[in-house]
Amino acid sequence: MIDWIAFDADDTLWKNEEYYLEGRDRFLEILQKYGLGTADIENFDKFEVENIQYFGYGVMSFVLSMIEIGIEMTEEKISPSDIQKLIHLAKEMLSHEVEVFEGVNHLLENLSAEYPLMLITKGDLLHQQRKFAVSGLAQYFRAVEVVSDKSPGVYEGILNRYNIEPERFLMIGNSLRSDILPILELGGWAMHLAGHPTWSHEDDPTNHLDQERYLEVEGISMVLDKLVEAGFLSR
Amino acid sequence: MIDWIAFDADDTLWKNEEYYLEGRDRFLEILQKYGLGTADIENFDKFEVENIQYFGYGVMSFVLSMIEIGIEMTEEKISPSDIQKLIHLAKEMLSHEVEVFEGVNHLLENLSAEYPLMLITKGDLLHQQRKFAVSGLAQYFRAVEVVSDKSPGVYEGILNRYNIEPERFLMIGNSLRSDILPILELGGWAMHLAGHPTWSHEDDPTNHLDQERYLEVEGISMVLDKLVEAGFLSR
Repeated sequence: MIDWIAFDADDTLWKNEEYYLEGRDRFLEILQKYGLGTADIENFDKFEVENIQYFGYGVMSFVLSMIEIGIEMTEEKISPSDIQKLIHLAKEMLSHEVEVFEGVNHLLENLSAEYPLMLITKGDLLHQQRKFAVSGLAQYFRAVEVVSDKSPGVYEGILNRYNIEPERFLMIGNSLRSDILPILELGGWAMHLAGHPTWSHEDDPTNHLDQERYLEVEGISMVLDKLVEAGFLSR
Repeated sequence: MIDWIAFDADDTLWKNEEYYLEGRDRFLEILQKYGLGTADIENFDKFEVENIQYFGYGVMSFVLSMIEIGIEMTEEKISPSDIQKLIHLAKEMLSHEVEVFEGVNHLLENLSAEYPLMLITKGDLLHQQRKFAVSGLAQYFRAVEVVSDKSPGVYEGILNRYNIEPERFLMIGNSLRSDILPILELGGWAMHLAGHPTWSHEDDPTNHLDQERYLEVEGISMVLDKLVEAGFLSR
């Protein structure tokens, strides 16, 4: 019934959002020195999303946005040494170890025996490639695609290039906006990891997901059972 | 004799280095306010190259390095509004129009009738994709690869994926380090655009290029003639 299974990477196979939340906390600590509080950075997300058109997704975009909004919100009072701290934060985040979620190895080992697997991830190209290389998961994947955005058009391009019919393609990921909705729109299968940590921008609560090809589990450890239930794997 | 022709993009097909030099000039202007001169930013290149391990190649890497070295060199005296200027510079560079070199359209139109063409470019993923999309050149290319580095291993991976024998592959570009030497090392053909502007980091004057599969021309307008001379095209 399906020919390929694709996975998102960040927050699907390994820890990611937690590092951004920690980065945000450190930014907040810096801003507190200038008399600014949590309420003041409420619009940081909006600001960051606006900058995506220039900087794309990833750590460099995140940190450039923090520097920019830090300068604006403190009315240029932020000290250069605090800005330096944000650049060091970027380097730290970019060279973090990769913490693969429990159960991922077991899952991929089983699935890769039955299906060709593809990784489809967005963000800084170098960072994504490095994380993949050190994750220990490369052996399970037949193909890797780092993309700048996860729109239906981008997925369509990938499916065309690999000659895959959408209805014979399953994407598994934590982000409704990036991993699930575009695939359903194209007529593919999508499995949402509903319990994984996810950046609010990647959410999309307005959508009704009572569609035939939509599957949902809490976390990565339930994926195998769900695939058996859906008839994609025999027990 | 060859099956594929690949092109580098930045400074091969369109203007690029000039924007970086302009950016560098603006950085120098800022530093002059703090009593620093050209001699002081002599080591900026070295600093920037060291940061490539974290930030990769591209505009965001360039600007993050400028901010960092600006803070260090001014001993934290640089003002937040000057740092803000550098972030605006990044946005400007990332949304620049793409100035395709004269003769590129004519060349690609002719070549794409005889060979499948591939674009192999490194840098910020989103920026490279956007430049390609607005360049008007997409119609000529069968394949596009944005990579984080242009090492022999990366080229080898591409050749394997497309099932291309190195000796039946020709790469054309302006950078000895990135476009020419790795390809020659793999046993492929490489044509250097020796007269195109090139970042000093991309130069490699220590190498002897009296190799059989090395071709050299001054600029893009001489590529067709050189290919005829080499026997890859009939007149």
